[in-house]
Amino acid sequence: MSRFTAFETYDVRFPTSAELDGSDAMNADPDYSAAYLVIRTDDPDGLEGHGFAFTIGRGNDVQTTAIEALRERVLGLEVEAVLGDLGGFWRSLVHDSQLRWLGPEKGVMHMAIGAVVNAMWDLAAKRAGVPVWKLLADLTPEQIVALVDFRYLEDALTPDEALEILRRAAPGKASREERMRAEGYPAYTTTPGWLGYSDEKLVRLCREAVADGFTQIKLKVGDSLTDDVRRMRLARETVGPAVRIAIDANQRWGVDQAVPWIEALAPYDVWWVEEPTSPDDVLGHATIARAIAPVRVATGEHVQNRIVFKQLLQAGALSFLQIDAARVAGVNENIAILLLAAKYGVPVCPHAGGVGLCELVQHLSMFDYVAVSGSLDDRVIEYVDHLHEHFLDPVRMRAGRYVAPEAPGFSAQMDRDTLDRFRFPDGKVWSSQ
Amino acid sequence: MSRFTAFETYDVRFPTSAELDGSDAMNADPDYSAAYLVIRTDDPDGLEGHGFAFTIGRGNDVQTTAIEALRERVLGLEVEAVLGDLGGFWRSLVHDSQLRWLGPEKGVMHMAIGAVVNAMWDLAAKRAGVPVWKLLADLTPEQIVALVDFRYLEDALTPDEALEILRRAAPGKASREERMRAEGYPAYTTTPGWLGYSDEKLVRLCREAVADGFTQIKLKVGDSLTDDVRRMRLARETVGPAVRIAIDANQRWGVDQAVPWIEALAPYDVWWVEEPTSPDDVLGHATIARAIAPVRVATGEHVQNRIVFKQLLQAGALSFLQIDAARVAGVNENIAILLLAAKYGVPVCPHAGGVGLCELVQHLSMFDYVAVSGSLDDRVIEYVDHLHEHFLDPVRMRAGRYVAPEAPGFSAQMDRDTLDRFRFPDGKVWSSQ
Repeated sequence: MSRFTAFETYDVRFPTSAELDGSDAMNADPDYSAAYLVIRTDDPDGLEGHGFAFTIGRGNDVQTTAIEALRERVLGLEVEAVLGDLGGFWRSLVHDSQLRWLGPEKGVMHMAIGAVVNAMWDLAAKRAGVPVWKLLADLTPEQIVALVDFRYLEDALTPDEALEILRRAAPGKASREERMRAEGYPAYTTTPGWLGYSDEKLVRLCREAVADGFTQIKLKVGDSLTDDVRRMRLARETVGPAVRIAIDANQRWGVDQAVPWIEALAPYDVWWVEEPTSPDDVLGHATIARAIAPVRVATGEHVQNRIVFKQLLQAGALSFLQIDAARVAGVNENIAILLLAAKYGVPVCPHAGGVGLCELVQHLSMFDYVAVSGSLDDRVIEYVDHLHEHFLDPVRMRAGRYVAPEAPGFSAQMDRDTLDRFRFPDGKVWSSQ
Repeated sequence: MSRFTAFETYDVRFPTSAELDGSDAMNADPDYSAAYLVIRTDDPDGLEGHGFAFTIGRGNDVQTTAIEALRERVLGLEVEAVLGDLGGFWRSLVHDSQLRWLGPEKGVMHMAIGAVVNAMWDLAAKRAGVPVWKLLADLTPEQIVALVDFRYLEDALTPDEALEILRRAAPGKASREERMRAEGYPAYTTTPGWLGYSDEKLVRLCREAVADGFTQIKLKVGDSLTDDVRRMRLARETVGPAVRIAIDANQRWGVDQAVPWIEALAPYDVWWVEEPTSPDDVLGHATIARAIAPVRVATGEHVQNRIVFKQLLQAGALSFLQIDAARVAGVNENIAILLLAAKYGVPVCPHAGGVGLCELVQHLSMFDYVAVSGSLDDRVIEYVDHLHEHFLDPVRMRAGRYVAPEAPGFSAQMDRDTLDRFRFPDGKVWSSQ
């Protein structure tokens, strides 16, 4: 019997604002950051669980403090008991009767729970000697359903319906797993489209994206309609008619602003419009979706929890559902969201980028394909080529697809050297500025 | 010209869990707490701004750290510039391009902004020598509209419509102000109804509430239907048919559970049912509201921001809107919510209790009556008789009504002695345990 003996947090920040990588209509100058967690046990195997919340700079200390607030909920617990009932562990954190006042189930405290839960999944997969996507895919439908908290979901999805979805997907699992290992998971790239880039850089990066095998790219929009029309036209001319172009407004518009703006870009063939308004505005998204059809709405990177995703699906407010691996309360809540999407027949196209979001979310999409939706139709994971070099098991791309990770764990572990150098404010990168 | 020179935070906690005051179906053992802020300037007047976020124990340190994260956004600013444009100041905090990732506009970071904004209003009113409700009521419609950020609201409420609402209310302002000073604002009491209380204590406190002049009480429900029916029957027998009884489930149910539970209590005449499900579930609230009519839905104490309130109103999901003075981003956002409620003709019945929530929110309701809705119909502020003794200008009740505060400021200031004794973990109350 082993116990959790250490719970170490790190405020890690990368000075990305210097390059305007990651610049969009709402996030002018992000410093991509991670509120990072290492969990250790007294087991002689020496394995650690690594997890993190992603932020974009200021406030990463608040996020780190929120993870620290969960220390006493973890230290001393029996490892096998926690890892053997991660559904129960999830509930013990999310429904803490005092901490839930800080949300409930949203914002800083909810992301902190996500970091802890994801660290547990990293550890569980390392102990099992498999990547997280494979660990999840090998669970029985009953085990998967036990990971999910159906509170507030049952008017849209019951445990029995979830079991039904998972059992329906069971027959083809082995061949889909084989296909993942052989072909990988389709991706699209946001690299060309940041707002801070010049037209020349946009065109060059569009060309490179096509050469790299991507069949979908994404442009940031929402700052200036004139600029957006010009950039969209340039991108379309560069990639040709066969490559899909999605646009992303990063919440810039109100409902009434969104509709004419999207209509002005629609002639250049918009695959989806992402985050046209506040992520909290279910009814607003639904109104926009009706007004701009056949252009379709995608959203999710800032959707706070499964309850809001439930409503977006109920209201027909989105056509592509964009999970984020580090926004909601970890793997368990994302399984709930994958099941909701499967119930409503909506493709899941994860948000990624930032710090380590690509590394984490590939596991969830591969699990979705093997064991939940069973489909790759219109499904793509976002890909951004930032900061992968800081991870021990970075994502690998081949011909515009994510190669299935094989290393045990959640691909979540950063270099020790990175944790030291980029620690804020005392790491060398920051203290020497 | 003076500047902000100090920004001091305090993690203040009261060991209320020992008495089961404040116990409900989701919050079994709260320790009512405040992440408390004092702002000072170099003005010779020596006036301070006091504000706080309310939490229920664990995590109050996270909330305090979130307030600290705003220190650099305040220190050094010119006092007159900030207080002369509190709408612009609000935007500078809420739309900080890095901090907004932690919400956006929800949870720990949003409540932190609320504490800072409310401290500014406390200071502004002290400098003007009037209570906050009077300071607000004396603003012109144009000044009030300038305090509000209409982003994401304009599909429900435009600045012009807000001006129209405020101008319509202008004629009777002087007589309504006089009435507030003469009669006070109607209240209801939650004191009898906590789940942790015995039947005997429930009956005794119901009797006392009627004797104290209250015409509405509230019972916590949602833990056991059998217990709830018995307690509701006892309460109804004790208070008679003329006193309104509201029930409060504190988010305990899913949509499908809520409806039969409420129907079982409806024969005892339920004035409203509060928080029947998740505060994030706009569509769920709307479904419940349709199913249980003519019983009506109240919600709001955990509604994260104006965008969710907008949707609750658009969907017809509530009949009573319950603002909270310390959940959203302070006075400015609550003005937006009051205006939305006025547009939709829904009475505002604030949540209060906790630590200092009664003290703050009375100002907002009195402002609403004098300058926005102009009505007291079906409007009541919650009253709970906890912890008022720690405030310099505590609420005063007379015949079941809040007496209009006259002291300059927001009634937000705690005793210095309280800040010392209840500081966590080093104050005498905690370190001696």
